[in-house]
Amino acid sequence: MPRRAAVFRARRSRRNSDLFVTNKLILGIDIGGTKSAAVIGTAEGVVLARAAAKTDANDWRRGVATLIELARDVCRDYGCQMSEITAVGVSCGGPLNFETGTIHAPPNLPGWEAVPLKALLEAEFGLLVQVENDANATAIAEHRWGAGAGCRNMAFLTMGTGIGAGLILNNQLYRGRNGLAGEIGHMRLVLGGPLCLCGKRGCLEALASGTAIGRMGRERFGDVSVTAHEVCDRARLGDPIATDILAQAAYFMGLGLAGLLQTLNLERIVLGTLAVHAADLLLEPIRRSAQENCWPSVWAGVSIVPAALGDAAQDKAALAVALPLIKT
Amino acid sequence: MPRRAAVFRARRSRRNSDLFVTNKLILGIDIGGTKSAAVIGTAEGVVLARAAAKTDANDWRRGVATLIELARDVCRDYGCQMSEITAVGVSCGGPLNFETGTIHAPPNLPGWEAVPLKALLEAEFGLLVQVENDANATAIAEHRWGAGAGCRNMAFLTMGTGIGAGLILNNQLYRGRNGLAGEIGHMRLVLGGPLCLCGKRGCLEALASGTAIGRMGRERFGDVSVTAHEVCDRARLGDPIATDILAQAAYFMGLGLAGLLQTLNLERIVLGTLAVHAADLLLEPIRRSAQENCWPSVWAGVSIVPAALGDAAQDKAALAVALPLIKT
Repeated sequence: MPRRAAVFRARRSRRNSDLFVTNKLILGIDIGGTKSAAVIGTAEGVVLARAAAKTDANDWRRGVATLIELARDVCRDYGCQMSEITAVGVSCGGPLNFETGTIHAPPNLPGWEAVPLKALLEAEFGLLVQVENDANATAIAEHRWGAGAGCRNMAFLTMGTGIGAGLILNNQLYRGRNGLAGEIGHMRLVLGGPLCLCGKRGCLEALASGTAIGRMGRERFGDVSVTAHEVCDRARLGDPIATDILAQAAYFMGLGLAGLLQTLNLERIVLGTLAVHAADLLLEPIRRSAQENCWPSVWAGVSIVPAALGDAAQDKAALAVALPLIKT
Repeated sequence: MPRRAAVFRARRSRRNSDLFVTNKLILGIDIGGTKSAAVIGTAEGVVLARAAAKTDANDWRRGVATLIELARDVCRDYGCQMSEITAVGVSCGGPLNFETGTIHAPPNLPGWEAVPLKALLEAEFGLLVQVENDANATAIAEHRWGAGAGCRNMAFLTMGTGIGAGLILNNQLYRGRNGLAGEIGHMRLVLGGPLCLCGKRGCLEALASGTAIGRMGRERFGDVSVTAHEVCDRARLGDPIATDILAQAAYFMGLGLAGLLQTLNLERIVLGTLAVHAADLLLEPIRRSAQENCWPSVWAGVSIVPAALGDAAQDKAALAVALPLIKT
């Protein structure tokens, strides 16, 4: 179905039935390293319209101008005024300062140093804006509308380029002292282990991330072009080296999750990225290792599940960031 | 000064000045493996009267009867009726069920299996009773009145027979799904490491607790009578083996704390037990290791300090448990 038709139908149902009458419109902005999107959605996580474009990762002024254009485009597409929007949520890679809404040159946006995004967008739109790092944003979205629904205490973890967690404790995002809670990719699990991008050895991220799986693949296959996805493909074809690489990564991921469970006594862990794309290869070994490495009483009742929001995760994550701004 | 004189003075000031007029009286009960105590105190953590006796660790019926006697004794000593007490807080070793207030045979109370302590004491006293494990209870007390005062996000850790944490997140005790949050003594830090009492190898507790320090002392001095305190005494006299044992334990304690900081982005860690008694030997090396093993941005602004409530910690911990029951 072409997008404009979908937009039209959503629009009609909002105007002509009670379906969305109680919903407030949210503008969500997702800033990725290569693409960014603006979406109009509801406080129930329903995406009504979407516009996307390439991110300018090196020039933040042009990058922000693109975001503003996308926001105006998506409003026009959906047929609403900016003044009909209740609040704006922005999801972006960290590090960023949640309170001031300032971006501090995330690895995937090297030119975005000290960008006062919240202030810029609030001035531009005349709306309240909340900015959150993408792991936290996805944690909120999975908790509200995805694989973490109904959980009081859960973690969402990325398992891609890096490993980072968003923590939902007592039904609320837990940020810690200055927004760095959940940086569990840099817990050291093997003191003499492989070098991590952070400069230390044996961090969880250096043992179990997509990056680590790719590195092990390149080392063990002696082929500089191997990626994590290719290691998964080879393992699916029964390659013993690829199978062993994934077994190692899954073991260490489970070991890290066991530490998280001993610390926080969570009821659910939602895994994203590679744990979704290669759930067939990774999930069971990760679960076994987590169980093996924590107490039976801590493990009892825990579920480790793949993220459920799929391709819509980033859009919904951006919408979810705005929820605290909305009085429902 | 004899205790009864102190009791009399506190009593007078409560009646004759405004000093304690706004305070509500709390009954605190601390159940230890060898001794138990009942105290009368205020919501500000002031202990007004105290009575103590030997714990019956093997016969819970006699043990609970002793607690009830102690409570009646301390009321009589202080000169108040049980009906003047606002609420009762009980601090006891875990495992226990916080919601039902049932004790499940803690290692130091082997005969206390499935003891419905909350129900028994509520029926006996006609008062609301809250039961909490001792690490959590001390965390609340240190946060309110001790070394954690003014912190929004902190952990209190014991470093004695075992290693366990009480977590204060967003100014509240965080218990997790079923009260097991903070069992960080069983995060595995060294996969092939020494055997832990929990049956796994290389847990933090098997590397850095008082028990672990004693075990290393016995192994390396070839003397079955060596204790953790003796290792500390020998280190103070310059013994190189004792010094090395403490350096190892402190390194692993710091490594475990670094993992906790990466996960929870705390602002303060309060250490009890051995870290208080041997603060001169352990604190600086623990701090150095924690700093070395976490991100500079996570470490910035963190303080690792010894517990501040000293000999009164257990009494105040029991009082602190009752605070949520009191409307102030």
